[in-house]
Amino acid sequence: MPAISEKGIAMPESPIRKLVPYAEKAYAAKKTVYHLNIGQPDIKTPHAAMEAVTMHSLDVLAYTRSDGSEGYRNKIASYYQKNTIEVTSKDIIVTTGGSEALLFAMGCIADQGDEIIIPEPFYANYNGFATASGVTVVPVQSKIENNFALPPISEFEQLITPKTKAILICNPGNPTGYLYTKDEINQLADLVKKHDLFIVADEVYREFVYDGHQHYSIMAKNGLDQHAIMIDSVSKRYSMCGARIGCLVSKNKEVMATAMKFAQARLSPPTFAQIAAEAALLTPDSYFTEVNQEYVSRRNTLIKGLKSIKGVRVGIPNGAFYCVAELPVDNAEEFAKWLLESYDYKNETIMVAPAQGFYSTPNTGLNQIRIAYVLNEDSLRKSVEILRHALEEYNK
Amino acid sequence: MPAISEKGIAMPESPIRKLVPYAEKAYAAKKTVYHLNIGQPDIKTPHAAMEAVTMHSLDVLAYTRSDGSEGYRNKIASYYQKNTIEVTSKDIIVTTGGSEALLFAMGCIADQGDEIIIPEPFYANYNGFATASGVTVVPVQSKIENNFALPPISEFEQLITPKTKAILICNPGNPTGYLYTKDEINQLADLVKKHDLFIVADEVYREFVYDGHQHYSIMAKNGLDQHAIMIDSVSKRYSMCGARIGCLVSKNKEVMATAMKFAQARLSPPTFAQIAAEAALLTPDSYFTEVNQEYVSRRNTLIKGLKSIKGVRVGIPNGAFYCVAELPVDNAEEFAKWLLESYDYKNETIMVAPAQGFYSTPNTGLNQIRIAYVLNEDSLRKSVEILRHALEEYNK
Ligand SMILES: Cc1ncc(COP(=O)(O)O)c(C=O)c1O
Ligand SMILES: Cc1ncc(COP(=O)(O)O)c(C=O)c1O
Repeated sequence: MPAISEKGIAMPESPIRKLVPYAEKAYAAKKTVYHLNIGQPDIKTPHAAMEAVTMHSLDVLAYTRSDGSEGYRNKIASYYQKNTIEVTSKDIIVTTGGSEALLFAMGCIADQGDEIIIPEPFYANYNGFATASGVTVVPVQSKIENNFALPPISEFEQLITPKTKAILICNPGNPTGYLYTKDEINQLADLVKKHDLFIVADEVYREFVYDGHQHYSIMAKNGLDQHAIMIDSVSKRYSMCGARIGCLVSKNKEVMATAMKFAQARLSPPTFAQIAAEAALLTPDSYFTEVNQEYVSRRNTLIKGLKSIKGVRVGIPNGAFYCVAELPVDNAEEFAKWLLESYDYKNETIMVAPAQGFYSTPNTGLNQIRIAYVLNEDSLRKSVEILRHALEEYNK
Repeated sequence: MPAISEKGIAMPESPIRKLVPYAEKAYAAKKTVYHLNIGQPDIKTPHAAMEAVTMHSLDVLAYTRSDGSEGYRNKIASYYQKNTIEVTSKDIIVTTGGSEALLFAMGCIADQGDEIIIPEPFYANYNGFATASGVTVVPVQSKIENNFALPPISEFEQLITPKTKAILICNPGNPTGYLYTKDEINQLADLVKKHDLFIVADEVYREFVYDGHQHYSIMAKNGLDQHAIMIDSVSKRYSMCGARIGCLVSKNKEVMATAMKFAQARLSPPTFAQIAAEAALLTPDSYFTEVNQEYVSRRNTLIKGLKSIKGVRVGIPNGAFYCVAELPVDNAEEFAKWLLESYDYKNETIMVAPAQGFYSTPNTGLNQIRIAYVLNEDSLRKSVEILRHALEEYNK
């Protein structure tokens, strides 16, 4: 039998996937499972986006341009301009989700064995894209006791080698919900200029910012045109994860010309989804106001609940819709499996993501979990109660 | 300014793209341009596929499973079973076009510097996926004088090294239109078994087979379960290129488990497109009969026309909707540019793809072009006349 590639063997399994067989046991036992483990929002997709697709009048479902339809690119450029990001359609390549934009970005900036520094815990699939691209992830640790703020710049500098090509940040963060301050963005900007690195900013949660805080985009920073690459996506913004539309944005012309070659090889992003995404841009600001109010209420309910459980520690996320919580257990993965396999509270249980998979340093975050607050408040309240009782029982 | 990766620099430009600036000059000069250069069919997408999308009643456009929705996977499995390919939904991962399936396949079987042998001329984007994956393409030449039949197996064997991981074929072929015989598929099967290699068969044109010939799928071959990986796509089959739905099919469980890790990293194939692709499977056989009749008429018109031009040589393609023609010019790329920039016949001209980009061996196919017969017969007839007059004028 011919052998699988080393790369294929090294490809990480999604940290969420591991628990699926245990979830199946819970379903088989007819338990209700609250899914706090995935970033699939329950929020309705804007009507305009859905309707644009039902109204289509295409005869031939053709490829679009490899960098996305011109109409859509012009409209996202306007969206960014409204958000103080001075880009034109030329600085944008439409991709199949933010996922593909991440893959293109890594391909453009790093060769086999090159290094990208990423504050951990980070979105677990960065590991997958890095492995697929032959890139080595170098983690720099952010700490729950600092609410997962940017680690000191000196810690980044210690990790820079001749192979370092970029810093990758997620702002606001998955899984931490942390929103970088203007000062932190400035520090990162100085760092990448000093060491002539790229900075890749995954801003797919850019609209999910709470409590009057402001989002500082890497693209709005002066003097960073040659360094900055932004990753974006409509998946979370308009609760249209299944569209598979994202984009790569940069004012660095070499980066764009190179990313375009990757884009051409795969021909085109999905056509129906671009129609939907273009229409989604007509969504009134009130949609985000309402959605963000909803997420703030959920977050408040969740965090208050978690803090009321003895031995649980959690930061207050200012953005996105995740938080990382530390539990009074030795191994959160074992606990998460136990929740599905062996526990129920009034025939209900919860599914959470063990945080270990969001760290690249081995044996880190073992007692942490990520919770996505993509369920309504009532379900979140019940989930907290389940967690409270489960921890009591587990630690007996 | 931080440097682009070596890989990014090495990424090939699409051979079709190069001509776009010249086409723009032709448009600016108000010439009509017949596009024989791209594989975007003009055939209507089946109504059922388009309607399924206009009728959708989704509230939230969510991710599907990473390997594709279960409903769709079950139905494609039935489609294959009807076509004497014994697979179940477990052997199928739905991908974002055949393009992504090719990328996954390379990732699963080859590491940096590993080799894949491909008969040339071949679909130019194989080069892009290979470069992105760190794979070295090793070409084995098929010849226009043999109608681009499979090169002798001895020529493959000479090229096999310890780094060879797979043979990649396209059947029927883009750009050649060549359909492999049962005997050729058997020879390839013996070869990969003997040397313990994978065989990746790109069968995206599997339904486009003419003159009563039969398509022999690599997946229908006994004893090849551990070796065979099929790439498929709805793009051409149902003229729905913009859907971006393909699949990777294999009975090798290790390959599937590995491909699944690549699939999980990018979360999900597009949801609307899966709805369309599932509905497309209801397309009656009469659709293919009619479409194939149309392509046969076009092919006959085109080939007859080309053969009537002095100095032009062309094989008779038995499948797909392309042919490679040899022209009485030294450099077909220069000629193709000239056609757009400097020539018109009654204010009309043609855009063709220089075949050089479909060869991996340098300086090969310099006097060849690829023609896609994706236009109606009338346009093809006019295109042939334009070519005839253009060659006369060019060679004056
Ligand atoms: C931080 C982050 N980046 C990128 C993605 C990729 O999303 P998509 O490919 O759907 O745009 C996700 C999805 O969860 C994410 O959380
Ligand atoms: C031989 C071959 N393989 C694969 C593809 C990729 O097509 P898609 O990604 O649209 O399925 C094409 C498209 O032209 C092709 O000609």
